[in-house]
Amino acid sequence: MKHLPHKTVERLSQYRRALLDCLGQGKINIFSHEVANLLHITPVQVRRDIMLIGYTGNLRKGYDIKELIDLIGHIIDTETGQRVAVVGIGNLGKAIISYFKGRRSKLSIIAGFDVNPEKTGKVYDGVPIYPNEAMQEIIQKEQITIGIITVPAAQAAAVAETLINSGIKGILNYSPKSLSVSPHAYLEEYDMLTSLEKVAYFTKY
Amino acid sequence: MKHLPHKTVERLSQYRRALLDCLGQGKINIFSHEVANLLHITPVQVRRDIMLIGYTGNLRKGYDIKELIDLIGHIIDTETGQRVAVVGIGNLGKAIISYFKGRRSKLSIIAGFDVNPEKTGKVYDGVPIYPNEAMQEIIQKEQITIGIITVPAAQAAAVAETLINSGIKGILNYSPKSLSVSPHAYLEEYDMLTSLEKVAYFTKY
Repeated sequence: MKHLPHKTVERLSQYRRALLDCLGQGKINIFSHEVANLLHITPVQVRRDIMLIGYTGNLRKGYDIKELIDLIGHIIDTETGQRVAVVGIGNLGKAIISYFKGRRSKLSIIAGFDVNPEKTGKVYDGVPIYPNEAMQEIIQKEQITIGIITVPAAQAAAVAETLINSGIKGILNYSPKSLSVSPHAYLEEYDMLTSLEKVAYFTKY
Repeated sequence: MKHLPHKTVERLSQYRRALLDCLGQGKINIFSHEVANLLHITPVQVRRDIMLIGYTGNLRKGYDIKELIDLIGHIIDTETGQRVAVVGIGNLGKAIISYFKGRRSKLSIIAGFDVNPEKTGKVYDGVPIYPNEAMQEIIQKEQITIGIITVPAAQAAAVAETLINSGIKGILNYSPKSLSVSPHAYLEEYDMLTSLEKVAYFTKY
């Protein structure tokens, strides 16, 4: 299957989140306009995305929630799952570890790294924290494929390089520093400031 | 001025971040293709956005970095600045307070709220933390216009309602629960899981 567009993948992840909530509330079927309402987008967008992954609902009953969740999982997840490391165990690193705990079976954070010896050699919320020097060894031994960076701006580029050299295939960068990585790795960046400035702009008037 | 498209506002914020870095490195001028490289987008996109805000560079020297930063500030920021509150002083709330500290003069976090009495009545990184019951009073007294939600999913909807009732105009929701708010307020949501699932998808093959 060819890669789906970035925005479609984002929305599929959001659909799954909303659908899991609905399933938890005992709902069996859902219409595209209901999904659209939950995500503040248009029903046309929802139908287009769902058609793109080859699923069609029932005109009278809508989509089968369970089937759609399974199909999205089949598309987004890998069979065996992926293993994730967090570099930088400050407040944000800790928040991320706690947030993901048990949330998806196919994506598990299994190691943390930090430069501060007071943080290493311990277990935070079930995740062992190692010193940065152990990064290459642990990543290879544990077959970790994704790295989340939450270190200060000044350290971000060096951490990204070590991750890539250790065989990491994808990086999620939360540091305030925009990175450049090898074209063989996938880079996703998020800056909280951008979200807040967007809110500020749209509440200006 | 009419509202700019959402994606343009996001990119303007990102341009400013990159331009401030360049200015800090002593750079005076920059070409659209250099900005594009820093942000991993196309030069055409950069030129289109910058033209949209009515700025044109010099063919030979590119954009004047300082001028462009000021113009973006003029568009995104308000003259007097906006005041922000964080609700939920767990690891994520703390990370956000520390992250924004002194980063933008026009956006300042000036209050935190939490239900846990052990966290309230204290000051975290310069920000006073109040009990949730004081939300309406403090928001009105301090003229806070933006609220950042970092509480657990189960509390998010109630917190959003209190914020809106207190006169907040914009919400940035980091809780795992998607919200619905009054059409008079602007809502921006971010779910870390979506970013991580996107990385997972694009590193799958």
